[in-house]
Amino acid sequence: MKQGKLIGASLGPGDPQLITRKAWDALHSGAQWAYPIRKKGSDSYALGIAQRAQLTTPADALALIFPMTHDAEKLARYWLEAANSVLATLNTGRDVVFLVEGDASTFSTFSHLARTLRGLADHIVIDTIPGVPAYNAACAALRQPLADVDDTIAIVPAAYGVAFVENLLTDFDTLVLMKVKPILDDIVDLLERKHLLAHSTFIEKVGANEERIVHDITQLRGTKVNYLSLMLVKNPARVRGEIQKGCRKKSA
Amino acid sequence: MKQGKLIGASLGPGDPQLITRKAWDALHSGAQWAYPIRKKGSDSYALGIAQRAQLTTPADALALIFPMTHDAEKLARYWLEAANSVLATLNTGRDVVFLVEGDASTFSTFSHLARTLRGLADHIVIDTIPGVPAYNAACAALRQPLADVDDTIAIVPAAYGVAFVENLLTDFDTLVLMKVKPILDDIVDLLERKHLLAHSTFIEKVGANEERIVHDITQLRGTKVNYLSLMLVKNPARVRGEIQKGCRKKSA
Repeated sequence: MKQGKLIGASLGPGDPQLITRKAWDALHSGAQWAYPIRKKGSDSYALGIAQRAQLTTPADALALIFPMTHDAEKLARYWLEAANSVLATLNTGRDVVFLVEGDASTFSTFSHLARTLRGLADHIVIDTIPGVPAYNAACAALRQPLADVDDTIAIVPAAYGVAFVENLLTDFDTLVLMKVKPILDDIVDLLERKHLLAHSTFIEKVGANEERIVHDITQLRGTKVNYLSLMLVKNPARVRGEIQKGCRKKSA
Repeated sequence: MKQGKLIGASLGPGDPQLITRKAWDALHSGAQWAYPIRKKGSDSYALGIAQRAQLTTPADALALIFPMTHDAEKLARYWLEAANSVLATLNTGRDVVFLVEGDASTFSTFSHLARTLRGLADHIVIDTIPGVPAYNAACAALRQPLADVDDTIAIVPAAYGVAFVENLLTDFDTLVLMKVKPILDDIVDLLERKHLLAHSTFIEKVGANEERIVHDITQLRGTKVNYLSLMLVKNPARVRGEIQKGCRKKSA
């Protein structure tokens, strides 16, 4: 009997027009839809992108719970439940398409699902359709490069701490700070101290109806921000090394 | 009189199915196509993606020369010529869509064109359509995450040197090395010395017909590689800090 495959379909960061042709085809392929939610009854950001593309959610679409927690045991239990739900469909010979915001390979629930499913049944075919990451869409919206030629980019969870982020300013021209929420005020202070406020922008839910772009990030002090947000920091004062072999090289 | 706008349409790294719906619409909008070439008569990688999508190149499509050189004066001259060609069309009221491989904001000729055009005529509307970067497509093809939760990513031109790349292994879980060509053997040596050969993959022209994936990167020693290539390095031995405020934080 034919075994279905799991398709991780990246839908991009929020604008339904940023869905790729390949993900679009996967959504229309007859595969069972599955989409992540935080808890029972909550909205799915990924499903919302498909809905804004005027697609009707199939009646048999599967809501899979990926709770927001660092409790490893709880996470493992939910991942197993999600993987088992998917496997039940795959075992009937039907494909499952898992809807993911942004890119399925980057900070995504899809990698947990894929890993857990492979643990249950390692013969299952898993296809990943890559997508547009939020920071690329943010740069497009801001009409600024993410990286010019010879630039360096760091994409990090800011929650590693202010010292960690400050240290990156030596080697990186562009910082993409994810998860700024827990240390937002400290990050704003750092960027002020480093004279980088004018080169920093905060972007939440880029391309969605609730998109929010904040140029004066000092306004964010003391406020709460959404999980689906990032800080883009350009670092024009970085000292570059010499050019060698037709490319720049750090001098000794 | 209406002034046309410039649209930077990211077509993704090579697979025509990774063109977004928005870029697809821009290609069909009646805007004049423009595409980058290295020199007179050479092929355009970006145009090739559209051609593999079964699109016919319009008879009036504009080939714009972006030479491969670090000669700043020569570059500026060609950028000005390209911007003037685009401006001539925009001044007739017609839009121009510039075809870009990968993402238009990331290591792209589009930022040079946009900057130069803005210098000539700062009232021109410039829209950027973000796209799928090559390293996201590479991770999808390899079925491995670019970043798991709490991971850090560095995207750098390897040509900054082996010491620069080695230094990144302290703070980064994933390295994306662009422009490995000039120091390829040195990079392979570094990754061998750091016991990272098993976690490193070389990918050239991902998603195109000439796609090449090399798992045993020691085979690359002494060989020449294409400009459109990257090295993906996972760094599983990196020491992580403690979790704080629900997120990991580097310990002191």
